[in-house]
Amino acid sequence: MPTLFHSPMSTASRFVRLILTEYGFHADLVEEQPWEKRREFLALNPAGTLPVYLDDNMRSLCGPYVLAEFLDETHGVLKRDRRLLAEDPFQRAEIRRLTEWFLQKMETDVTRPLVRERAYKLQMSTAQGGGPPDSKLLRTARSNVHQHMKYLEWLAGSRTWLAGDRLSYADLAAGASVSILDYLGEINWLEAPIAKEWYQRVKSRPSFRPLLAERVPRLAPSSHYADLDF
Amino acid sequence: MPTLFHSPMSTASRFVRLILTEYGFHADLVEEQPWEKRREFLALNPAGTLPVYLDDNMRSLCGPYVLAEFLDETHGVLKRDRRLLAEDPFQRAEIRRLTEWFLQKMETDVTRPLVRERAYKLQMSTAQGGGPPDSKLLRTARSNVHQHMKYLEWLAGSRTWLAGDRLSYADLAAGASVSILDYLGEINWLEAPIAKEWYQRVKSRPSFRPLLAERVPRLAPSSHYADLDF
Repeated sequence: MPTLFHSPMSTASRFVRLILTEYGFHADLVEEQPWEKRREFLALNPAGTLPVYLDDNMRSLCGPYVLAEFLDETHGVLKRDRRLLAEDPFQRAEIRRLTEWFLQKMETDVTRPLVRERAYKLQMSTAQGGGPPDSKLLRTARSNVHQHMKYLEWLAGSRTWLAGDRLSYADLAAGASVSILDYLGEINWLEAPIAKEWYQRVKSRPSFRPLLAERVPRLAPSSHYADLDF
Repeated sequence: MPTLFHSPMSTASRFVRLILTEYGFHADLVEEQPWEKRREFLALNPAGTLPVYLDDNMRSLCGPYVLAEFLDETHGVLKRDRRLLAEDPFQRAEIRRLTEWFLQKMETDVTRPLVRERAYKLQMSTAQGGGPPDSKLLRTARSNVHQHMKYLEWLAGSRTWLAGDRLSYADLAAGASVSILDYLGEINWLEAPIAKEWYQRVKSRPSFRPLLAERVPRLAPSSHYADLDF
């Protein structure tokens, strides 16, 4: 069976796991600690990014961008109205723009610093950079959460799904990021009622179940994390 | 005519300009200073990334990932052996992996800090963060140059072009990054003779000419920057 190297608090890993499940793929999950930079892992993916998919012929596919495009070309294209990319090139461009927004911009502004400070540092040794969170970094990331939730609220209010009429990669990328922030209790849902309604729909998909059942060592999720009706 | 908002020292802008010229597109070039964050520009692309392509119907396409995929779908697919992405999904994955390597990893480790410290800070006001370069950041980026040139040397030595037998997006992404570092005189070509032979081939393409003729205010290029036989 193919293997997916992933990490539970990595947005890109969650994103690809959601795609695989939506498309009915089975892969063995192997947890990789992003801060460890294992030699064997770097041999698979010199960039060191997660996730990495290793197929039955030991060919590796590295990172969410390569994987999402590969899965669309080899499987999405056959899925008709369950395809997670559109057919029209401009519509595809909009899905990709938003996917990149959540996997890159929101990641840099918000998700990566919060995960690092609040989750990874609990698990890292002192030599690896572990320890208490840096309160200045937390403050900056938290003030960025509001801006990103405003944009999500606007998108959710203007369209049925974030990039248009159909569930797409954009929703899975946003859902991956939001689910991590929600685990950490960093989202004030009262501020974003339309985004909340969108997230309830995303979160209720069967593909989300495994993510909602996972727990990070030494860090309990927010009380409503796994509730579909929160 | 369509418009491309770009910046001469932005790797992603150079990458997309190379694709457009290779495919015979004409676009008006409008220079955008990446540090200015103009409101009108952010209205076109909320992520604020370069380049942005505005077509004749005022539809915008944002950033190198969206643009490269869009141009492949709408034009590359008709180019047969001049197509800059392959036909085989695994080969496409390898081209995308390397394109991302040069536009993301090499950019973060090397090109962005060197451009910011050595070129942008010369043009920015003090309020914008201008001033002399930070010598610690320069030192780190310069030590990363060696690692990246080693990888480029290895790639150039193993394949005709970086991702295989044909010129691809990977070569244009690498060429975009390398040409900026070469402008800044940051590459020791004696250390990388095979990469040098590859770069001579890339640099000799007609699509490279406009880039080699450009100059950045207050910063002269290295003496061999525009030489095809350096």
